[in-house]
Amino acid sequence: MHTALDTLTGILGDVTDLDHTASLLEWDEQVKMPPGGATTRGHMTSTIRRLAHERFTADDVGALIEQARAETAGADPSSTPARLLTVTARDYDKARRVPAAFVAEQARVLSASQHAWIDARAASRFEAFRPHLERVIELKRQYVSFFPPGAHPYDVLLDDYEPGTTTAEIQALFEALRPRQVALIRAIAERPAVDDRCLRARWPEADLDAFSREVVTALGFDWTRGRQDRSVHPFATGIGPHDVRITTRYVEQEPLSLLFGALHETGHALYEQGIDPAVARTPLGRAVSLGIHESQSRLWENLVARSRPFWQHFFPALRARFASALGDTDLDAFYKAINRVQRSLIRVEADEATYNLHVMLRVEIEIALIEGRLAVADLPEVWRTKMREYLDLDPPDDARGVLQDIHWSGGLLGYFPTYTLGNVVSAQLWDAFGREHPARDLDIARGDFATLLGWLREQVHRHGRMLTPQQLVERATGSPIDPEPYLAYLEEKYGEIYGI
Amino acid sequence: MHTALDTLTGILGDVTDLDHTASLLEWDEQVKMPPGGATTRGHMTSTIRRLAHERFTADDVGALIEQARAETAGADPSSTPARLLTVTARDYDKARRVPAAFVAEQARVLSASQHAWIDARAASRFEAFRPHLERVIELKRQYVSFFPPGAHPYDVLLDDYEPGTTTAEIQALFEALRPRQVALIRAIAERPAVDDRCLRARWPEADLDAFSREVVTALGFDWTRGRQDRSVHPFATGIGPHDVRITTRYVEQEPLSLLFGALHETGHALYEQGIDPAVARTPLGRAVSLGIHESQSRLWENLVARSRPFWQHFFPALRARFASALGDTDLDAFYKAINRVQRSLIRVEADEATYNLHVMLRVEIEIALIEGRLAVADLPEVWRTKMREYLDLDPPDDARGVLQDIHWSGGLLGYFPTYTLGNVVSAQLWDAFGREHPARDLDIARGDFATLLGWLREQVHRHGRMLTPQQLVERATGSPIDPEPYLAYLEEKYGEIYGI
Repeated sequence: MHTALDTLTGILGDVTDLDHTASLLEWDEQVKMPPGGATTRGHMTSTIRRLAHERFTADDVGALIEQARAETAGADPSSTPARLLTVTARDYDKARRVPAAFVAEQARVLSASQHAWIDARAASRFEAFRPHLERVIELKRQYVSFFPPGAHPYDVLLDDYEPGTTTAEIQALFEALRPRQVALIRAIAERPAVDDRCLRARWPEADLDAFSREVVTALGFDWTRGRQDRSVHPFATGIGPHDVRITTRYVEQEPLSLLFGALHETGHALYEQGIDPAVARTPLGRAVSLGIHESQSRLWENLVARSRPFWQHFFPALRARFASALGDTDLDAFYKAINRVQRSLIRVEADEATYNLHVMLRVEIEIALIEGRLAVADLPEVWRTKMREYLDLDPPDDARGVLQDIHWSGGLLGYFPTYTLGNVVSAQLWDAFGREHPARDLDIARGDFATLLGWLREQVHRHGRMLTPQQLVERATGSPIDPEPYLAYLEEKYGEIYGI
Repeated sequence: MHTALDTLTGILGDVTDLDHTASLLEWDEQVKMPPGGATTRGHMTSTIRRLAHERFTADDVGALIEQARAETAGADPSSTPARLLTVTARDYDKARRVPAAFVAEQARVLSASQHAWIDARAASRFEAFRPHLERVIELKRQYVSFFPPGAHPYDVLLDDYEPGTTTAEIQALFEALRPRQVALIRAIAERPAVDDRCLRARWPEADLDAFSREVVTALGFDWTRGRQDRSVHPFATGIGPHDVRITTRYVEQEPLSLLFGALHETGHALYEQGIDPAVARTPLGRAVSLGIHESQSRLWENLVARSRPFWQHFFPALRARFASALGDTDLDAFYKAINRVQRSLIRVEADEATYNLHVMLRVEIEIALIEGRLAVADLPEVWRTKMREYLDLDPPDDARGVLQDIHWSGGLLGYFPTYTLGNVVSAQLWDAFGREHPARDLDIARGDFATLLGWLREQVHRHGRMLTPQQLVERATGSPIDPEPYLAYLEEKYGEIYGI
């Protein structure tokens, strides 16, 4: 006798297989596919995604959820079956609210707008992208209308990436971060610049790749359940916890971005590799939110790999391998170089101290667009105003201003806040780990990352979606999401580096 | 207004997307997947294959085929819509005859039998594999029973790989080939052996790979629509004509197998790259049979790349790059070395002159098993008898005898004949091309492969399944499948090399 829960679990297993398959198709497209394969791949990916959507949103799934809920009535709400049904019912409800005709229309609009964005950015002409973005914003407002009215229309968009987090919470977070981050950056700007010329010396690609793999291995990346390749844009993808793939790139003008990019993606990958295999073929077997995902990449890239203890351990090996690039650069000078703060026009090149300001600017614009307070036509001007206010910079053109990010052309509104949430949560986790393990920095200085990884496995990774993001942060750190640890971290670290 | 043909074409497009996706999943599994991914990949591939099967065999497809036939009644039977419906109706009828419960049971039996075969081969113990093979043969006989009785039960199995070819035709082909091939091999055995020690000198892997890629490029492989990687067993896979992937391997004891393996797979790949893109997302957009596929790999590997004119062109470059391996080996000695005939125990190591005898032995056994004339328990003895009869060899153990091939453990009965069909058809095509292009050998000696590739594109590749294998061979060569050109080719080539 099969229960409704068994039947539902079988269907969800098929849907998970289709999702994993789509992830692999997309990985292959970025990493291995010959260019001629693009059209065929477009058909394949869209068919797989459509079949996953159709299977999941079919009427029988709704009926099975109800029957399975009746079967498990009275179960502990934190038990696996109960949590599976909660998460599945939530996903089902959201997916069913959006009409198929809208999904198809949106796919067409976004495909055109992404092509238009590529051309507009190349020509640095916002005007060429404007009508497309207007259509995207219209669609996003229409998308919001499919959901019950809440405190703020932007909540609906945010919820797709950061379940349960509200616009008001994000705005409060920004209000807390903005003044102290702006003040810190201004203070740093008055101090002598850090000398980071060693970072732009010759770092041979093959050596850097080999060194990077050694470090990735030392952090705990499991190569029997993962691989690393090259791609135009670095990314991480999980095809279940037993097949997790990261990519890197080598940029001659910024060679160490290969290393720090690899460590960032390793942070994402360690999360994916750490999800409990027992729920891997269910909707519970995924990262709980983009913010929590980003907290892992930021933690390993910044809190760990841009720290002094980390380089106390690795600098001798780095020095031995890259003697010509490092010349007479010592550990202290290298540490400062990789933590140089510099206000820049481009988000993806931003350092720890300035990154959140790039995010805030975008999120404030998104919220105003969704509220209807801001017209798309006014974007370049608003962008310039905010860049002056937050970073004292004047974008010389649209390509280095409002056109720099792919997100809006792809309809990813509500996504940017997760970068800042990631930064904030990474510092909360780091603090909590340090409280429980006072030898944290000593462990890292002797190259022991197993204690940290074990703690993150237990506190973050293994849960998948068994906990909400809010439950996870509370359980791990003893407090809700809180900007204070990140601000304290920034002020202490950069105060020391810049002698403020 | 959508016609039934439009609706059917849409469904077949989805099924093709699923088939292409399964091919990519399998390629990735062999070439890129980390070992830990195996279980998850098993779920993914089996779900994708099942969804393709379910979608294709659904009742609505049968109804749409009938409606579309009515819509296109009176159309030229060689037109694309008519041929699409013929091929689709054939596939549908075959797929519908096999009950889903049988398919599931067969998958279980074959999975177990493949694992048992791996262990049995490692231990060289046929007895450990015997009960599994008995079950496989039972299933194959049951499979045959789902189809209308024909002239011979083996016809049903053959038809899955070589549509329209009968057991009687294969037996007649073997009767024609066997005596003259056995006589040729015996005559060769009486002549002094060819010196091929240069092939086992040191051929550095990286250089060999680079040289191999140059040759593959010269033959016409389109790298914008394909790629080449390493895998344990070389293979070619087409994800539509615009994404065709080959693999090679390097074996230290047999370094040039990298080159000839690459050229063999390139032959398969040129076929896949040459299929008319207009039918790529339909059941017409595939190779018409395994025999025709093999004719392309054999033609490029053997008729072209083991010919004297080919090396007249490439030997100077080979010599320059591999001076230490080739020492004072000249073109003539190298040509003889790569065409050395040697009776061997292992099919996959067999040369052109002996290969078909390995195939015949297996096919005769398969036919007797399906007829019920031969018991699985008697296989090792029958194997030894036939090896003595055809190749004057005594297998010292089961691993180098009856256990050497993966095919039976995977249920691939009816597959072996296509290797011999490939050899036979390759020579027919080669002859026909030579008649139309008397400068054939001169062109090849100056490195012009475009004329040959253009001819194969027109005669073989572009058609996909628009023609039957039989129509294709008749149209291209002016005659039905005929062993004479292959026999004449062998006798002339090896008569010259061995001075017979």
